[in-house]
Amino acid sequence: MDEFELINLLTRDLPQTDSVKVGPGDDCAVLDLGLEDRYLLFKTDAVVEGVHFTAEDPPEQIGYKAMARCLSDVAAMAGHPTHALITLALPQEFDPARIEGVYQGLKIAGAPWQVSIVGGETTTNPDRLLLSIALLGTVLKSQCVRRAGARSGDALFVTGELGGSRTGKHLDFRPRLDEARWLAENFPPHAMIDLSDGLAGDLRHLLKASACGAELHARSIPISRAARLLPRTDASAKPPLLAALSDGEDFELLFTLARTKAVALLDAWKKRFPEIRLTCIGKITDTPGLILRDKDGARPLTLHGYTHFKKS
Amino acid sequence: MDEFELINLLTRDLPQTDSVKVGPGDDCAVLDLGLEDRYLLFKTDAVVEGVHFTAEDPPEQIGYKAMARCLSDVAAMAGHPTHALITLALPQEFDPARIEGVYQGLKIAGAPWQVSIVGGETTTNPDRLLLSIALLGTVLKSQCVRRAGARSGDALFVTGELGGSRTGKHLDFRPRLDEARWLAENFPPHAMIDLSDGLAGDLRHLLKASACGAELHARSIPISRAARLLPRTDASAKPPLLAALSDGEDFELLFTLARTKAVALLDAWKKRFPEIRLTCIGKITDTPGLILRDKDGARPLTLHGYTHFKKS
Repeated sequence: MDEFELINLLTRDLPQTDSVKVGPGDDCAVLDLGLEDRYLLFKTDAVVEGVHFTAEDPPEQIGYKAMARCLSDVAAMAGHPTHALITLALPQEFDPARIEGVYQGLKIAGAPWQVSIVGGETTTNPDRLLLSIALLGTVLKSQCVRRAGARSGDALFVTGELGGSRTGKHLDFRPRLDEARWLAENFPPHAMIDLSDGLAGDLRHLLKASACGAELHARSIPISRAARLLPRTDASAKPPLLAALSDGEDFELLFTLARTKAVALLDAWKKRFPEIRLTCIGKITDTPGLILRDKDGARPLTLHGYTHFKKS
Repeated sequence: MDEFELINLLTRDLPQTDSVKVGPGDDCAVLDLGLEDRYLLFKTDAVVEGVHFTAEDPPEQIGYKAMARCLSDVAAMAGHPTHALITLALPQEFDPARIEGVYQGLKIAGAPWQVSIVGGETTTNPDRLLLSIALLGTVLKSQCVRRAGARSGDALFVTGELGGSRTGKHLDFRPRLDEARWLAENFPPHAMIDLSDGLAGDLRHLLKASACGAELHARSIPISRAARLLPRTDASAKPPLLAALSDGEDFELLFTLARTKAVALLDAWKKRFPEIRLTCIGKITDTPGLILRDKDGARPLTLHGYTHFKKS
């Protein structure tokens, strides 16, 4: 049983009232609380020492990452983050200055979007630091983008460059909130997800929610400089394309849009976000499954994304 | 530096917008999102193996406790719980059936109030199970009760019986949501808190928020059967009164009300909740500090509540 099978098992038959527009299985839960034109977005995400960061990472970056991961999920639904609660589970021995540094990072990450930190709690986790963020946001009902909604023939886009995040980007990325909101206003995506488990894994999540397949063009996939350089210094590093397909924690947006709007989008994007790459990496198909097309033709891609555990 | 000093340090200068009606330092954060007559309540709470439960405790009770603790905080503000997200941090080796049991307990705890479980996440915490709940609720603006608001001369009330929770109640208590809402509708408390750190500790939180003091009547404090029996079988057990004052995890309501309404409240309570004790245990005073009055007279009570850690 792997992580996703366990989640499926646990989220069967969960109690839900009519206010739940989207429950488990998307980037955020989407709730209708009676606000006239907006839904509430609700998300939690945890980072754990030894799993998502090391004891040696700068405290500010640990806090920054914890908050930015959650913000990235709000971005994936084209929402506005508003309020956060912080759960700090502290090891037996800790340095208060380290925890202050973590908080500093939390504040820095939320500041560009005026995220209010409204409390939280401290508890004990004897062996290691664990940091969990609960985040609220809102999204215009007309602009909420889900994982479900991709249509056969859609063009598939990704922001930024992929792979090699663990060399540094995973602690220092800017969540794509502004970009996602601009998209929702100007080129509403049919479906969207943020890349946390790796392109191949997260694309599968989007395809499963949308009940369709996709074909990726290997030569189009934007590979980060880090992923391209790693094999030169580390003989056991993944080949760059494989890194771009399977490394986690890119925190870029993956979305689909009608093919007829692709050129207009690319033009408008270049004007609005000249510093950030936007790439069409393939298309959505009727046939379930994931196909990779390269110079040797088209083959099924069996690669999956990152899972925290897999049990036999 | 103890837990509360660290929290004070971390929660200085937190970024907050006008939508934040109550930030850190109460049972829940209180947010004004633009709903006509209601505030949103927002709360997180975590339980950790070896701290809040043991590896041997029944999984259903672990899940039940995790959810019920959060519900108790919503009760303390006279709110209605609505939606929850579950963060499961799983040890390297875990039994999926145990985790299913935990989820069963989560559902059972939320069921009486139709709490929707709208997702969450699973991650790794290599050494032990950690379970964090993020909970939303709503409260009528006119009925929201805070820790601040107690007035000199108020009578001080507590529901249920106190002490000895670790012998079983901490895994199996009913959060006082119905009772709190009935109070808010019929006898609006001036200030309220739920008892998680022990009477002496939580009363101090309420007094600090309300900028006043209190006098407790030792003979009135309702001591649980468990706290009374423990010294008979365990020579190192606390004397019963001390247990009632300082044991954590009672999850009862502590609140204040104008003295003139005390008799009417006790009469009406007995009719509405005949199974649940309600006791006047003292009064609010002008003078800061906590006084215990017993047959030998009145003395300052130096006792504090449970803290997760204290660092020199």
